[in-house]
Amino acid sequence: MSIALVILAAGKGTRMNSDLPKVLHPIGQAPMLAHAMQSGAALEPARTVIVAGHGADAVARAVAGIDEDAQVVIQQEQLGTAHAVDQARAALAGFEGDVVVLYGDTPFVSPETLERMIAARKANDLVILGFQAADPARYGRLVMAGDRLERIVEYKDATDEERAISFCNSGLLACDATTLFSLIATVGNDNAAGEYYLTDVVELAAARGLAVTAVACDESETLGVNSRADLAAAEAVFQARARAELLDIGVTLTAPETVFLAFDTVIGRDTVIEPNVVFGPNVTVESEATIRAFSHLEGCHVSRGAIVGPYARLRPGAELGEDSHVGNFVEIKNAYIGEGAKANHLTYIGDASVGAGTNIGAGTITCNYDGVMKHHTEIGRNAFIGSNTMLVAPVTIGDGALTASGSVITRDVEPDALALARAAQVNKPGRARKLFEMLKARKAKRDQEAG
Amino acid sequence: MSIALVILAAGKGTRMNSDLPKVLHPIGQAPMLAHAMQSGAALEPARTVIVAGHGADAVARAVAGIDEDAQVVIQQEQLGTAHAVDQARAALAGFEGDVVVLYGDTPFVSPETLERMIAARKANDLVILGFQAADPARYGRLVMAGDRLERIVEYKDATDEERAISFCNSGLLACDATTLFSLIATVGNDNAAGEYYLTDVVELAAARGLAVTAVACDESETLGVNSRADLAAAEAVFQARARAELLDIGVTLTAPETVFLAFDTVIGRDTVIEPNVVFGPNVTVESEATIRAFSHLEGCHVSRGAIVGPYARLRPGAELGEDSHVGNFVEIKNAYIGEGAKANHLTYIGDASVGAGTNIGAGTITCNYDGVMKHHTEIGRNAFIGSNTMLVAPVTIGDGALTASGSVITRDVEPDALALARAAQVNKPGRARKLFEMLKARKAKRDQEAG
Amino acid sequence: MSIALVILAAGKGTRMNSDLPKVLHPIGQAPMLAHAMQSGAALEPARTVIVAGHGADAVARAVAGIDEDAQVVIQQEQLGTAHAVDQARAALAGFEGDVVVLYGDTPFVSPETLERMIAARKANDLVILGFQAADPARYGRLVMAGDRLERIVEYKDATDEERAISFCNSGLLACDATTLFSLIATVGNDNAAGEYYLTDVVELAAARGLAVTAVACDESETLGVNSRADLAAAEAVFQARARAELLDIGVTLTAPETVFLAFDTVIGRDTVIEPNVVFGPNVTVESEATIRAFSHLEGCHVSRGAIVGPYARLRPGAELGEDSHVGNFVEIKNAYIGEGAKANHLTYIGDASVGAGTNIGAGTITCNYDGVMKHHTEIGRNAFIGSNTMLVAPVTIGDGALTASGSVITRDVEPDALALARAAQVNKPGRARKLFEMLKARKAKRDQEAG
Repeated sequence: MSIALVILAAGKGTRMNSDLPKVLHPIGQAPMLAHAMQSGAALEPARTVIVAGHGADAVARAVAGIDEDAQVVIQQEQLGTAHAVDQARAALAGFEGDVVVLYGDTPFVSPETLERMIAARKANDLVILGFQAADPARYGRLVMAGDRLERIVEYKDATDEERAISFCNSGLLACDATTLFSLIATVGNDNAAGEYYLTDVVELAAARGLAVTAVACDESETLGVNSRADLAAAEAVFQARARAELLDIGVTLTAPETVFLAFDTVIGRDTVIEPNVVFGPNVTVESEATIRAFSHLEGCHVSRGAIVGPYARLRPGAELGEDSHVGNFVEIKNAYIGEGAKANHLTYIGDASVGAGTNIGAGTITCNYDGVMKHHTEIGRNAFIGSNTMLVAPVTIGDGALTASGSVITRDVEPDALALARAAQVNKPGRARKLFEMLKARKAKRDQEAG
Repeated sequence: MSIALVILAAGKGTRMNSDLPKVLHPIGQAPMLAHAMQSGAALEPARTVIVAGHGADAVARAVAGIDEDAQVVIQQEQLGTAHAVDQARAALAGFEGDVVVLYGDTPFVSPETLERMIAARKANDLVILGFQAADPARYGRLVMAGDRLERIVEYKDATDEERAISFCNSGLLACDATTLFSLIATVGNDNAAGEYYLTDVVELAAARGLAVTAVACDESETLGVNSRADLAAAEAVFQARARAELLDIGVTLTAPETVFLAFDTVIGRDTVIEPNVVFGPNVTVESEATIRAFSHLEGCHVSRGAIVGPYARLRPGAELGEDSHVGNFVEIKNAYIGEGAKANHLTYIGDASVGAGTNIGAGTITCNYDGVMKHHTEIGRNAFIGSNTMLVAPVTIGDGALTASGSVITRDVEPDALALARAAQVNKPGRARKLFEMLKARKAKRDQEAG
Repeated sequence: MSIALVILAAGKGTRMNSDLPKVLHPIGQAPMLAHAMQSGAALEPARTVIVAGHGADAVARAVAGIDEDAQVVIQQEQLGTAHAVDQARAALAGFEGDVVVLYGDTPFVSPETLERMIAARKANDLVILGFQAADPARYGRLVMAGDRLERIVEYKDATDEERAISFCNSGLLACDATTLFSLIATVGNDNAAGEYYLTDVVELAAARGLAVTAVACDESETLGVNSRADLAAAEAVFQARARAELLDIGVTLTAPETVFLAFDTVIGRDTVIEPNVVFGPNVTVESEATIRAFSHLEGCHVSRGAIVGPYARLRPGAELGEDSHVGNFVEIKNAYIGEGAKANHLTYIGDASVGAGTNIGAGTITCNYDGVMKHHTEIGRNAFIGSNTMLVAPVTIGDGALTASGSVITRDVEPDALALARAAQVNKPGRARKLFEMLKARKAKRDQEAG
């Protein structure tokens, strides 16, 4: 059975109090919408249609970056959820199979739940996703008769008996495409808000004698985001799950609650992550590495046995070889650090390659930017870059070469050579004392004048 | 009706185990006492009297920094709360109106609660602030008869029936000044501790046939601080509220529990605060800025669209222009960074002004201190400061000027000029290899001798 | 009465999913095993026997580092807890007194609890440690008859009545050595797993008419570690206790949950620890010091009144004098910083001594490593090290001396002298403008060619 996803992503999210469309606010460093898309992708859908509205251009750009095959349709006016799904009608013309309706602001529905909905579709025309609510509050209640879903009753219309029901409506549903659009065509807007509610298809389907049921999932899967506080709560849920998964596969997180992971972070077994580490997108850390406290990693690859931090910043394109060390107050960007190489203190390595076994002294900087273009620095194996060396790119340092501390290196250094760019030291006896005496006298005079 | 605040701040706070007077321990980076003073200030009091005792000099200095109109009186001996309030008698001689008694170690009473106390004063002679205690424990119980407060019963004197009461005494009260001091004059100290208890005024007022009532507030407002653990708990309460307020106004806090705010932090809508950011006092961040992880901000102003961090430290007097960037391991103090200017790596900018569009290379340092005085550095617009430039202040770099990497700049550089202070590079073929051979031989010999 | 500890530390810890033996995973930066050993040490045992198995070599090395008098015996095959204890038989041959059996993966049993077990031994032959379980789940139940422990019933063998018992078996016991080994010799392995269970000694002792009792401890003391999630939970328990102890003795922790302590961290009264501070092993901070946010301390000593951080890294051997300051992005390793001396910005001080009152300028680096050996830097009192000074060790800077900003100092500087190693500044008018024009033209050409 072919499947089409329709993901509703048009809402303004007024309570977010933001210029950014709600579904683009990030969770685990990916737009909220990407999480719903990813769950849906597990169904291997033939089609994915995103219904955008507020901030549609930004949403379309984001969708293109997540799944280039997904189609974005525009809901010009927000006239209700049934109206939103109806915007996908043309895009799905000719499609035969099941439509699964998801929400861009409900990021945590699991692939397993969606699969159970599809499975339930085999014996039913329409499948609603419900959940047992710990506090049903004002959710719509699912009134069941055995396996049949009789109707959905909104809180305000419910009898006391119905309000006692804790099985509630998530809004997600699965239905044969033809049936769904046929049902939607008959949804009316004769209600206080004047909106077309997707929920109404249940009653319409029952009236047609169609088989309607509900599948239950855990309440946590239906967590929706309507405010920044909700967003922070959703982020916390995401992080808790991601941390637990790492613990399960044998990663040590000394203080899991202080480690922030991205949606795609990969970390190997027996790697240790100390407290206060932040992962941006696209990071892989192999096994038996150590990421020390206060490190920040984005778009990088850390090989087995490497030691990173504390206070190391790995930026996109950083590639650390096995057993390499990147230490405190060191920034690596778009650079390869060879096996066993070390850059341990106060250093910036950008647009560079550092050979195996090379030692980068404290305060070294690759001067990769000339104000207009970026240039590459190539450092060989077993070289020794003296403290505070400026490597003015493009420049090449040969294997086994040495640069003297404090040198500005503007020309290539051949292998095994010593490069030096340094003024001679001159000591002037007694001069420091005289200088300070003069400065103090000047200050005293200034203070007196100001006095 | 004119209002006078009397804030009790004389206690030693023995359980704090500290040389610092209890009321000066900070919450949200302001002394605890400042929070009570700020709540009280919402009543627009005509007079504010702080009753100090232990560490009175330090308390007086702190008070002067918070509200220069507040008056500090000294309670030489700590003989009880009624005695403490009585120390304000002379300071309030001639004052006509209501006295509100607050506590310097009860920082969270809300202005709204105080206003409700004042409102209740209109129909009552004496108003006590009570709260429904989740765990009444050993608090004094408020025995009510309808709206009348009959008496306050201490736990140890209470009957079983009275112990079942959960409406408890916070200690705060509002009363006409003349009445209050008249009542206090009749409070005795015939009790186990030999102290004069302010609580006794309730019974004395009732005996005089005065109208006494109690107003209720949320228990969280009456949270008192008696130990470092209490202090940490109070800090957590403060932070939770401050974070929630930012979320409400449309600030994204990826992980709110890792962001530490000061009492006066101001952040604009659609600004993103990543995990692990610490705000000291006097920080304003405009809208649509980004404060990345591990940043630390004090006494600074960040304009719209600026990007700060990760690992940026903004110190007092840092003023960041729109769309400016301050990156990792960069410290800015008493300096203006112009619109779109960048200082992204390993840099110290102090006592300086950086023009719009200027790029500050990695490792740049403004040498602002000569050992005696601080001096200013002026950098123009669209300049390019090469990596590891030392700018020995006072010095001026003109618009569009360039300093070569590794230069120590001691004289002004005119606009569009290139400044260079650099020794020529010399490469000595094979010398690195020989040097390392020599060093290794020396080490081998030393190791052998150490045997 | 002489005491011998037998600590079981042979298990593989399959669920840890690690190559590191379970008991070596750290809590509070000490191997889990060290915590059990430390609790046991409070009994002043005459003998300590560690029963190792999986990873026995690594365990033996770790034990040697914790207690050189402890003896490690090997359990070649893991045939059950009674079999494990039996491995200590030879090591304890001739020992007369009590054996206390502890577990390397149960780190939180308190010395007080162990002392109560020993006390209970006086009137009993065998003492089992039990706990009231909040959720007894599948723990073995302790069936008591008054003070007598009748038997331990495993969950699967228990009647409904027995399952209602919430007093459960921790596995720890105390018993006269001769009796214990005699009992163990009769334990069989006729069970589903074919293992020899230590628990069986209870029934065997009762059958011999010996007096058996159980002592109760808090459930938190029996927390065991079987997975990384358990390890993180145990770490959290450790940290919560360690933080509470610091608060009690008068240390301010602004946000205790963000401060990570080691097993041996010592901090003095009225010291303030700001948020996000990590302590490695062997750190002492005296009273009235301030450790600012994002600092990382290991193996160091901070004297009274010193200010550390934010973003300071103190590594092993860092010794900070009174009122000294170590500021942001500064690393100190194996170095003494004299009274009132300051190193506030972007600095690396390693293998050095800095005299009282000396000011270390921003960007200063002690070049302590020549690629083969480490060397010492000696800086006198009241010296002024200019920004970005490279101190090429071994080198000595005299009292009151001054190094000019940007100098590479390779030779000693006498007291009160000024040392200078600097190229003269040359300004080339208009050259910056021409350079940028040329670079932009080059880039435009390149872009065009690529286009």
